[in-house]
Amino acid sequence: MTTHNIAFGKALRELRKARNLSQETLAFEAGLDRTYISLLELGQRSPTLDSMMALCHALKITLTQLVSAIETAMEKPHE
Amino acid sequence: MTTHNIAFGKALRELRKARNLSQETLAFEAGLDRTYISLLELGQRSPTLDSMMALCHALKITLTQLVSAIETAMEKPHE
Repeated sequence: MTTHNIAFGKALRELRKARNLSQETLAFEAGLDRTYISLLELGQRSPTLDSMMALCHALKITLTQLVSAIETAMEKPHE
Repeated sequence: MTTHNIAFGKALRELRKARNLSQETLAFEAGLDRTYISLLELGQRSPTLDSMMALCHALKITLTQLVSAIETAMEKPHE
């Protein structure tokens, strides 16, 4: 596991919860597996650009907004 | 191949050339295979967040700057 994958996972979980989406619903909307979403949120997979774009589409945010959320999560690694 | 992977490839090539780096040198600096760099530049692979972070480190840019370059490349798909 690496710091940025963990930060990505935290950001993804926060963005999903802010929209009141379950992992199942987000997975469906993004065309990804629920298990993969779970592993991403735990920082146990490094998302591809393909997956990030699919998640941005499902979360209705831009890639810039997603990266901003990742960088914010990287700045507070101990939460 | 998808639009954003092609845009990523174009952005990566431009950033590399602006620094006068060969694919070999960039691969060495980022700890990635030269063949993988070549496939990324052609838009034939979707980079993982791990790879993007390694490339940012080698190119001495932030993830935000890399994504900005990708989004700029997405806005001019026909060049």
